[in-house]
Order: sequence, then structure tokens, then C-alpha cells
Amino acid sequence: MTSIPGQLSPAPRLLLGPGPSDAHPRVLTAMTTPLLGHLDPQFLEIMNETQTMLRAVYQTKNPLTFPVSATGTAGMETCLVNLIEPGDKAVICTMGYFGNRMVDIAGRCSAQVTVKEAPWGQTFDLQVLRETLQTVRPKVLGIVHAETSTGALQDISELGKLCHEFGALLVTDCVTSLGCTPVKLDEWEVDAAFSCSQKGLSCPPGMSPVSFSPRAVDALKARKTKVQSWYLDLTSIMSYWGGDRAYHHTAPITMVYALREGLRLVLEEGLEARFARHVRNHVALKAGLEALGLTYTAAAHCQLPQLNAVRIPEGADDAACRKRLLTEFGIEIGGGLGDFKGKAWRIGLMGQNSRPSCVFQVLAALEVVLLGAGVKVTGGAGVAAAEKAYAA
Amino acid sequence: MTSIPGQLSPAPRLLLGPGPSDAHPRVLTAMTTPLLGHLDPQFLEIMNETQTMLRAVYQTKNPLTFPVSATGTAGMETCLVNLIEPGDKAVICTMGYFGNRMVDIAGRCSAQVTVKEAPWGQTFDLQVLRETLQTVRPKVLGIVHAETSTGALQDISELGKLCHEFGALLVTDCVTSLGCTPVKLDEWEVDAAFSCSQKGLSCPPGMSPVSFSPRAVDALKARKTKVQSWYLDLTSIMSYWGGDRAYHHTAPITMVYALREGLRLVLEEGLEARFARHVRNHVALKAGLEALGLTYTAAAHCQLPQLNAVRIPEGADDAACRKRLLTEFGIEIGGGLGDFKGKAWRIGLMGQNSRPSCVFQVLAALEVVLLGAGVKVTGGAGVAAAEKAYAA
Repeated sequence: MTSIPGQLSPAPRLLLGPGPSDAHPRVLTAMTTPLLGHLDPQFLEIMNETQTMLRAVYQTKNPLTFPVSATGTAGMETCLVNLIEPGDKAVICTMGYFGNRMVDIAGRCSAQVTVKEAPWGQTFDLQVLRETLQTVRPKVLGIVHAETSTGALQDISELGKLCHEFGALLVTDCVTSLGCTPVKLDEWEVDAAFSCSQKGLSCPPGMSPVSFSPRAVDALKARKTKVQSWYLDLTSIMSYWGGDRAYHHTAPITMVYALREGLRLVLEEGLEARFARHVRNHVALKAGLEALGLTYTAAAHCQLPQLNAVRIPEGADDAACRKRLLTEFGIEIGGGLGDFKGKAWRIGLMGQNSRPSCVFQVLAALEVVLLGAGVKVTGGAGVAAAEKAYAA
Repeated sequence: MTSIPGQLSPAPRLLLGPGPSDAHPRVLTAMTTPLLGHLDPQFLEIMNETQTMLRAVYQTKNPLTFPVSATGTAGMETCLVNLIEPGDKAVICTMGYFGNRMVDIAGRCSAQVTVKEAPWGQTFDLQVLRETLQTVRPKVLGIVHAETSTGALQDISELGKLCHEFGALLVTDCVTSLGCTPVKLDEWEVDAAFSCSQKGLSCPPGMSPVSFSPRAVDALKARKTKVQSWYLDLTSIMSYWGGDRAYHHTAPITMVYALREGLRLVLEEGLEARFARHVRNHVALKAGLEALGLTYTAAAHCQLPQLNAVRIPEGADDAACRKRLLTEFGIEIGGGLGDFKGKAWRIGLMGQNSRPSCVFQVLAALEVVLLGAGVKVTGGAGVAAAEKAYAA
């Protein structure tokens, strides 16, 4: 006999890591809406509404904008697997962990991959990429917009135009940017973008919103080979999330409910107000972190407001400090990934969690933990600096 | 400005199609539990509990038993993409729509596919498969346990042993069987199985529970090539859902909560009681449907209790009848797929929806709709026959 575990009752957490971030209560409530069939006219209308709002948040008119039925990396895979055919040339720009993941996936698509590397915490200069595009002439250039492992924001506002000069398609990882910082697919001429539900959109993880430009759709239609993944094959998914709503797979109904509610919250607030809020809370958190002597891993010109990655101060034990934050204060922050494993902490202020109470909670708890670890910190300095920043 | 749609408020439905089936209220409530991080010790414990219960429901000791972070077909793709390398021989048995899907996916894995066909509504005889195994000597044999398009149950209780006689791995589609009819992975020597969350487990769609035998894991470890999908690559996922819980992708936390609750409900009821309940309600529904003159598409010896597929009677318009059921009675039943499109209706009694009230509701509504369509039906005959069956 298998013993049956009890009712779910986890100790509460405040999720201030790199994601998942806390889901908004309205999103959780929306998920209790009874299921509809995936071909029910009522659900088809919910799909329409969700797609319309998703286009608004992505700032695009792309008809092919919808959530992939899986988490963020499946969105990455969807973009690459559909746009790359075996032997195609791809340039992948890496400046952190998730760029490397794109290299891996492009390789599995049998692309000829050229990797352009920037140091972790830095971003790419367009001039460098121009040279690469000119030399390689790839079909696809992939780049991370908001690198979750380093907290760096890559300016991609002119990159689409540049790619198109050389006939390349621009694929961007917007997993950590969407809903937190501006993402303007049309103005920036992005051809394929993917994101997630559990960061800037304040939903649980489980969906990956993607969007494809008409140029990307043309490339898809011109494929000579079948897409290697059935589940992620846009040539078929298009007929469910596109025109005729033909059955492909059973959509994760409840997750679509969640996403719809998350998008409603984004649009009710307004994009500009939301982006400004993320900046405001970031500035306060940053003032506080710096007052505690912590330094950012990302260069000063490209720090993400929604993901504050800082170097772990000397003397502090990574795992022990994060464990104390979690168990004593119920606050989750993220550890480092890849090159930054054991060297960085990542503090997210994403979606609804970008608010003063989160800033103060994490600064206060961090002060206690750092003091406890023997790091030289002036008690109250972080909180005071944040207060001052808000007042400014 | 994008206009923002109102609060979710769909008209209620009773989902008696091929899935999604209604989620249990306790499952919906569990989904409102605040999020945990995917590496939080509390969540790791929830993963352990979920895996332990999943093994009990799959009747297996397979350590590699976990839910894939996507819907059912992603589970199919996970099984095939991990066990097949380019050029490997695969035998796929088809007796309906979902067998054909397996053929498609195996082809995308660059397998040399041998397709064995049985007429829709029929199942395979082991002797026929023995000959195929002997001739082809495949690495993998794929078959559907419960064919959702025809309502037929394939006996696979001796098939694992047979496959192993010829060195083949047995992959089975348990999407519609798990939680409704017995699935005994260990006793039946199944090497890889996949299912879904939205049928026998009374959860929303969004997860695909899979299980791999040690033999399958050996095959995985012996691969010479990388798995073509990053998202579904078990060689990496194993380290998250297996021993060291290393980060792979962000698990869909809320869907895992749902699955955990669904599995608790299954085990609280007990497997044998649950299977018996599905049979009892099927017998009543079948008596009622036959009293209305409807005939099953699956042969008499292999009818699924949880999915009752019947021929659409002459004179009845498929779409019009289903639309009336949906809009007037709030009942969703399924149409036909593939060869059965426009020719069959599929009535599901799955998980919590396998209960007398569902049987009576659908029979009563169907009577009205058939009468309205001019089909010769004795009013009340279906309900009366079901009553009699329950009383027997």
C-alpha cells in the first residue's frame, strides 16, 4: 500500500528569485474556473482574447502570436526548431547561461552554429554583430533580450533592421523581459520571440507566449523538411491557434485561463506605468543593495530592473545564506547559474512582486543574514537607502 | 488601445467528451495554493510524493516515473524521441487516430518505421505481432493501450514479454487508460508509457505522466546521439526528476499541485474500486445508448468503459446535434476523428465524471436531441435501460 500524503499546505514563500515569481491572487482565482473543452466556442473566444492581449503586450500585430503549451524553454525550442532546417546557418550570441542553451538547441536542430560570445554581465555592440552577419550570412540570429543569469539587458531595438539587411531572421529570448521592460516586436523588427508566464506576467509557470513575424511565417512555409518536433510544429499548431481552430493537441485550458487573467492585469495597469513601476522599485532596491556593499554583476548601462544580480560578498556562504532567507524569512532569492554558480545572487522584482514591500522585506532580511554571516554591514543601511530612493 | 475583456465567466459545461474531462473541485482548489520555487525543498518533497503516487497508479517500481511538463502528446514524443535514434527500426501498431500520430512522430525521429494496421475499432492479435517482431526485429514497438478515437482497449498484458523475446522495447499510449482501467506496467513488462492529466486523473490538461523501465533507461544511456529535443531530453530531465534535482527547466508548479491532488483522489478511492466504478457506469450507459438504437464502433470484446464511441445514427446531423447538446444542455461530447470524422460520437465517463448523474444527464439530453433530429427513438428508453442496468 502506498501511503497517501496529506493536503497541500506549504509554508508561505515570497518568491524573489529569477522566477517563478508569485502568481497574482486574481490569477489563482481564475484557475478555479471550471474547465471547458479545447474546441468549445467559449474557449475559442478565450483564445482570441488571450491572443489579442498578448499582441498588445508584445507590441505587435503578428497574427501568429500565441502561448506554447509548455514552459519557457519549450518556447525557445519552438522558435529554433521551426525556423532552422538541418544545415542552416545560425549565429547565436551568448552573454550568459540562456544564450548557451540556445546554442545547444540550435545544434540539436542540426544547424551550423556560429557562437558569438560576450563576457558574462556584458552585452553586445551592434557593430560586432554587423561584422558577424556580413561574414556568416546566417538564416537566423538568436540573442537573449534579458539574460536571467547575469541580470543584463541587451538593447535589441536596432538589431532586427540589421539582421534584415543581411537576410537573417532575428530570434529573441524575452523570457525575463516581457511584462517588466519594453518589448516592441514590430518597431524592433523581431521575427520570433518567446517568453514565459511566471515572471513579468505573474502567472504560474506552464506556458510560453511566442510571436512570429510574417517574415518568419514565410520561412516556415518555405521549409523543405518536416519540423523535427511534432508537439512544437507550428505548421500544424497554426491551424489551432490560427485560423480554423483545427485540433492539434489538447490545450492546457487552466493555464490559458491564468495567462488571460495575467494579461488583463498587465493591460489594466498599462504598459508604460508597469515599466515605470519596475524601474522605480529597482532603483530603490539597488540603492539598498549597494548600501549593503553589494555590487551588480551586470555592467552599469545594462542592468535589468526586474532581475538584480549581485556578487556574493566575501565570507558569506551562498547556500547557507539563501537557506536562512528561505527558512527564517520565507524569502526565496536565486543562486548563480553556470559561470556565476556560487558567485552571484539573483533578486527578482517581477510583475506584482515589483513593489516596495518586497524591496523592504528582502533588504531587511538580507541585512540580518549578512550580519549573521559575519559580513561587515551597517544594520538598517539597506532599508534606509531604499527609503531615501523612494523619497527622491 | 486594446480593449480588455471582462472577468472569466463561461457558461457551465459537463465535459463528457474524450477529454478534457471535468477537473475535480479539490484539484481546482489545490491549484490556488501559492507558488513555490521549483528548487524549494518543500517543492522537492511534493515532487517525491507525486512520483510515489504516480508509481502506485501505474503499478510500477520504475524510478524514472514523473510528469512531463506539457500535455499528453508531448509524453508520446518524449518516449519516442528518447528511445529512438536515427535509423533505428520501429514497429508502430495503428488501429485509430493516435496510432497514426505515433507513426508520424517516429518518422520525425528518423526511425525506419514499419506500420502494422488493424481496422479502426478492432485490436491486435498477439500472434500477428509475434510474426512482425520476428521479421522486423525492431528496437521499439509502439501501440495504443486505449484508442481514444475508436473506444477500443488493446490487451497488452502479454505484449511486453513478447517484445522482450525479440529484444524490442514496448512503448504504450496510456493517455485514456490511466486512472480508468488497469495499467500494470511491471506485470505487463511495459518499457515506456505515457498518459495525460485531464482524463482518468480528473486534473486540467497540462501534464503527461510517463514511466520508463530499467531496460528503457539502459537504452537511453546507450544512445550514441543527442536526443533531438532539448525540452524532452530525459538524459537531462532525469537529473531534475531523478536523483540530484538539478535545474533543467522551470516545472509547472501549479500543474504539479493539481496532479498531486488528482493522484491523492485516485489512491483514496483505491484502484480496484475506481476501475469497478468505471465499468459499472459504462454498463449502464451502454444499456441506455443501445436502447436508443446506437451501436458501438469498437468490437464487443474490447470496449473501453471510459470512452463510449458510437456510430451517429442515420438522419442525425453530427455538428447540429452536438451543438444542441452543448448550448441547450451544457453537455460536451466528442465528434469523430480521422476515419470516423462525422461518423462517430465519443462519450467519455472518465475519472470523477464516471458517475450515474452523468450517465442519466447525457442519455436524457441525447434522447431529446435525437428526437429533435427526427431519429426514431422511444422517449425515456435510454434512461430506463440505464436504470435497469444499475439495478441489476
